[in-house]
Amino acid sequence: MDLLIKNCGPIHSPSTERMYHMPRLEGETILVLGGHIVAVGEAADAAMCQALVHGVPELNAEGALVLPGFVDSHTHPVFNELRAAEYEMRNLGRSYLEIQQAGGGILSSRRSLQEAPRDTLKELVRQRLRHFLELGTTTIEGKSGYGLSVEHELLSLRLLKELAGEEPIRIRGTLLAAHSVPPEYRENREEWFRQIEEEILPVVKREALADYIDAFCEPKVITLDETERICRAGMSHGLRVKLHADQIEAYGGGALAARLQALSADHLEQIDEAGIRQMVEAGTVFALLPGASFFLGQTKHAPARNIIEAGGCIALCTDYNPGSSHIQSMPLILTLATSQMKMSAEEAIWAATLGGARAMGLEAETGCIEAGFSADLALWPLRELNELPYYAGDIRPSKVISGGRVLHV
Amino acid sequence: MDLLIKNCGPIHSPSTERMYHMPRLEGETILVLGGHIVAVGEAADAAMCQALVHGVPELNAEGALVLPGFVDSHTHPVFNELRAAEYEMRNLGRSYLEIQQAGGGILSSRRSLQEAPRDTLKELVRQRLRHFLELGTTTIEGKSGYGLSVEHELLSLRLLKELAGEEPIRIRGTLLAAHSVPPEYRENREEWFRQIEEEILPVVKREALADYIDAFCEPKVITLDETERICRAGMSHGLRVKLHADQIEAYGGGALAARLQALSADHLEQIDEAGIRQMVEAGTVFALLPGASFFLGQTKHAPARNIIEAGGCIALCTDYNPGSSHIQSMPLILTLATSQMKMSAEEAIWAATLGGARAMGLEAETGCIEAGFSADLALWPLRELNELPYYAGDIRPSKVISGGRVLHV
Repeated sequence: MDLLIKNCGPIHSPSTERMYHMPRLEGETILVLGGHIVAVGEAADAAMCQALVHGVPELNAEGALVLPGFVDSHTHPVFNELRAAEYEMRNLGRSYLEIQQAGGGILSSRRSLQEAPRDTLKELVRQRLRHFLELGTTTIEGKSGYGLSVEHELLSLRLLKELAGEEPIRIRGTLLAAHSVPPEYRENREEWFRQIEEEILPVVKREALADYIDAFCEPKVITLDETERICRAGMSHGLRVKLHADQIEAYGGGALAARLQALSADHLEQIDEAGIRQMVEAGTVFALLPGASFFLGQTKHAPARNIIEAGGCIALCTDYNPGSSHIQSMPLILTLATSQMKMSAEEAIWAATLGGARAMGLEAETGCIEAGFSADLALWPLRELNELPYYAGDIRPSKVISGGRVLHV
Repeated sequence: MDLLIKNCGPIHSPSTERMYHMPRLEGETILVLGGHIVAVGEAADAAMCQALVHGVPELNAEGALVLPGFVDSHTHPVFNELRAAEYEMRNLGRSYLEIQQAGGGILSSRRSLQEAPRDTLKELVRQRLRHFLELGTTTIEGKSGYGLSVEHELLSLRLLKELAGEEPIRIRGTLLAAHSVPPEYRENREEWFRQIEEEILPVVKREALADYIDAFCEPKVITLDETERICRAGMSHGLRVKLHADQIEAYGGGALAARLQALSADHLEQIDEAGIRQMVEAGTVFALLPGASFFLGQTKHAPARNIIEAGGCIALCTDYNPGSSHIQSMPLILTLATSQMKMSAEEAIWAATLGGARAMGLEAETGCIEAGFSADLALWPLRELNELPYYAGDIRPSKVISGGRVLHV
């Protein structure tokens, strides 16, 4: 994992000191040793001769724009079947109830996941991970939440952990057993929460299956009290909180996340000014998912400009899932963030790299092109930062480097 | 250009009799001779043995979903520089006037086109045409309109005509000299229209450079009277009318197009019920461009559902251009048409194939998988029609066939 990247075009690294700034570094070389960046730009230019003496393999960037690999801090990649029919029904005006009655919705994902042979499911997830890399994403957070039984929630996280060891992408798992209360516990919700606490969390801890705990905090799904209970249970097992919050209603999920010192609250289409203020004060990251609003055909997006003005830290994510955001492409998310949420290219790319890393507590490890960081990079056939959102998703990196390893994407 | 396509998965062909219907054909074979489809489905299955005897080359479709290649009936592919900075300025709230003062807008495209060496410009356009094919588009309409001088309007159309002979994509040209009145004629608009009529159109006719005439019919750009004059001049030179209409204001461009028996009126975000009715009665196609609204960050789209209910024929197009829709991808347009304009997948794909062909007067030549049509096909790694819009543009055909020629995309 040693590499000398030469002839870089513009190298832009997210500033660790000034949010939303992506200064262009001087120089055109990046030196990687042992999978980590050791010198960038002019420092690396100077180190070139020495590195060559030591026979470090070279990569010619051919003038490409160099950015950190994307850090996608909110994805649901462990599912079996697509839900294209449901997308169609929704577009044609059917209600979620009608969709459920026609066999769609989250329970259809649960059923098809539970029915899938383990190897089939694992290969599906593997192909998705490889596609993330093709699109320039080198780190993802991946949630459980379509298993919705003790066995299948654990299976979902185990698959992610296995694949993290087999594919050159950084994955951190999130237990989202509280994605929904399974129908068999509709009259006895307590039983499902007990299973999460007593049967799932101890195994998650023992096998180190997840870093984060999450719940779908909405009035008709998981209440504020239930959310807090599950989050505290996760915290007591060493997990950090990332919360689905204030997507459908302004319910106070963002404020709860702040109170729990969560790493992030995610979605936030409906968050109010008070919620923004509390999250800023708590240092909780605003993980925004414009792909979900877009895919659901909604025009209301999270208030990105208000959050930036309030000093909040945004992470941009795909929310990749088969129901509400069948989008793996961070370049498309950048287009949505700029055209629909009115972020600048610089703000959006910062939020899709270092912002994502902060939302995962990985801000000292990835999302930045500085000495000491993992060599997670994407080379783009572009001349300027602002061209990346301008392609409306129809752009791929010419090369992706993950942990110093050059991937043939 | 003989080809036997075997092992097709679902073959869906737009109905020539029932708009918006894409029935699945029986059988799994398509026989192509001399670049044209001669038998499809069961008829081709039966013809297989005979074809094999004659040594027709085979293509294994491996179960792919087979659709006609897209017919993109509204594009502006002849430009030089990108306008990513302008996209950014608009997103951050700058007015078009401020963008123009900063050197952006249509005149920046004119300047950079006029400055570009001919070969440079031609290679740029060639790369764009190849990318259309990669995305499954086998026919485009291509406009002039960034030259905005006699010399450069003709150059734009000549490049398209040359490239139509060099690249395996069907191109029909549109003279859009009335995209804007050049600034040197601002006080003497008559002179620009005289040049179009007397200096451009005769050459267009003599060299067969275009099939269509177009004007950007908006109150502050080209007035209704000016539009009618230019259209009639084009018609007298054998061109058919395709009109930019009712995009920014409900100005009556759609109704004018109907009165002129235009092939299509395009954009129509602001068209009213009377305009819809007149266009339906005239048989003028509604060419809708949801990529423009999206790219401009607007939430108002053309009223697709009203048009369908009124019996209108929709063509879906990318509007590919550097200013208001930097989108070449018809799959993304399908996602916009379904999620934002509430069309079904079947309606949208019909409109992106046979609808586009109708908007170009090519409905007997392409956009359909029936005997007699050009073998313009795209093979998709999908199982069902409704999965194509569900991928939000992040899907490519596994094979593209243009005039019977298998392209290695």
